[in-house]
Amino acid sequence: MENIGYYNGVFAPVEELMIPACDRGVYFGDGVYEALRVERHRFFALEEHLSRFRASLAFLRIPFEMTDEALVAILQETVDRVESESQQIYFQVTRGSAMRTHAFPEGAQPNLLIFTRGVPLADIVERRRLIVLPDTRWGHCNIKSINLIPSVLAAQAAKERGCTEAVFHRDGVVTECSSSNLLMLKDGVLRTAPTDERILPGVTRGHFLMLARELGVPVDETAFTLEEAYDADELMVTSTSLHGLPVCELEGKPVCGRDEPLLRKLQKAYREYFYGSI
Amino acid sequence: MENIGYYNGVFAPVEELMIPACDRGVYFGDGVYEALRVERHRFFALEEHLSRFRASLAFLRIPFEMTDEALVAILQETVDRVESESQQIYFQVTRGSAMRTHAFPEGAQPNLLIFTRGVPLADIVERRRLIVLPDTRWGHCNIKSINLIPSVLAAQAAKERGCTEAVFHRDGVVTECSSSNLLMLKDGVLRTAPTDERILPGVTRGHFLMLARELGVPVDETAFTLEEAYDADELMVTSTSLHGLPVCELEGKPVCGRDEPLLRKLQKAYREYFYGSI
Repeated sequence: MENIGYYNGVFAPVEELMIPACDRGVYFGDGVYEALRVERHRFFALEEHLSRFRASLAFLRIPFEMTDEALVAILQETVDRVESESQQIYFQVTRGSAMRTHAFPEGAQPNLLIFTRGVPLADIVERRRLIVLPDTRWGHCNIKSINLIPSVLAAQAAKERGCTEAVFHRDGVVTECSSSNLLMLKDGVLRTAPTDERILPGVTRGHFLMLARELGVPVDETAFTLEEAYDADELMVTSTSLHGLPVCELEGKPVCGRDEPLLRKLQKAYREYFYGSI
Repeated sequence: MENIGYYNGVFAPVEELMIPACDRGVYFGDGVYEALRVERHRFFALEEHLSRFRASLAFLRIPFEMTDEALVAILQETVDRVESESQQIYFQVTRGSAMRTHAFPEGAQPNLLIFTRGVPLADIVERRRLIVLPDTRWGHCNIKSINLIPSVLAAQAAKERGCTEAVFHRDGVVTECSSSNLLMLKDGVLRTAPTDERILPGVTRGHFLMLARELGVPVDETAFTLEEAYDADELMVTSTSLHGLPVCELEGKPVCGRDEPLLRKLQKAYREYFYGSI
């Protein structure tokens, strides 16, 4: 199979998989998700994703009682049905299925939906262009919820301008990108916004910081401004599939390219860590 | 039938209606909705709901090409399949069905989902209790999107405390409730937050303001603080099904009850307008 979907015990190709219209994900976006890289049918950073997933569930107060062991067995069965050696698996849990009423439905059971398909890792050599947009998202961006309209609109705006990602800012202070984190190199220091309610605590972001420390590169977790971003030595976009994309342009202005050796050193360290851990 | 659902041409009881898992509503909440009252199988304030619906679609840039006439014909067919003389119909349009990628899918067709069922109008005599919560929603609350986690959590918090609704505030300034607007009477003036990006421009809210003006009651569309709410002569909760619910308690403190004549006069005017318009 090229892709496979799963919903509450049923497997089917993603395009054919059906779910109840009264799943609360459908009309409230009342659920949370995770996305993992799968190389040679093995999961990368599984524990970290599961830990964040449980935190997201707790915030939404979704009583998903399946153990990690049982969940991982289903995830494994799902990826094993797809041939690709390089997949991205997505899974979400919603509060359950019920007639539409805002308050939690009594006795509803959470629904588990999974998609997986072959998705290559993004090239990390070529420099990318980014746009800048105001961050108008809610106050809990640390929660990986499926309420994603702002990210959808930002990703589309970037695409229409031939760019890879949109950098969000609140009053001139950079938070993150539409579905990735933004890291900056300046004077040999790796800097990125702290993990508060304004950004998702990206797993890849965390690994880059860990590896920088191991390499003796100073790390600074304080937010930077747009002005500082334009003046960065390098900017790097990180997510599960974006392993430190380098940048050449921000909102149409040439930026970065001033510390390529450190940029490439960190990328290399990350790829070694990635392939060494799966 | 007690209820009916509709999805892209197929009718089924809501509990049995199935939709594709790859509908972008399911994993991005990438859609908008409306909810209307239906009395004796006729729609109340249809034009106003359709107008707001088109504005929400435009904000999300969803190219829903069905004419109002064709949409209304489907809505009518849906409500006609349910016996109840007093229904609430819900409809949503999502961007389409596709593999999960944030940017808009090429060539996808929007999906139309409808639910209707008998829902009685809420009693407007009994006074209700409200809780107060910080408003952590996104920056476009004027858009009726299906990204509704904050409203879900707030409605549940209210329910658990035996209350009807949660009043949202931003830095002490009242915006609206989790799925309704909040109006205040003070010294004979009807006051409520202006229709900017912080609140939904409620259809019922608009009618209350219109009727107040017709009755010679001064109207003030400037936001009020929580402090002012505690000191209100009356508070009224309005939505499609909540026709000016009176209030007796805010966050555990007794409030209101100081201008019952004007409260009841406005409620009565609204109900007459409602039944006279359908």
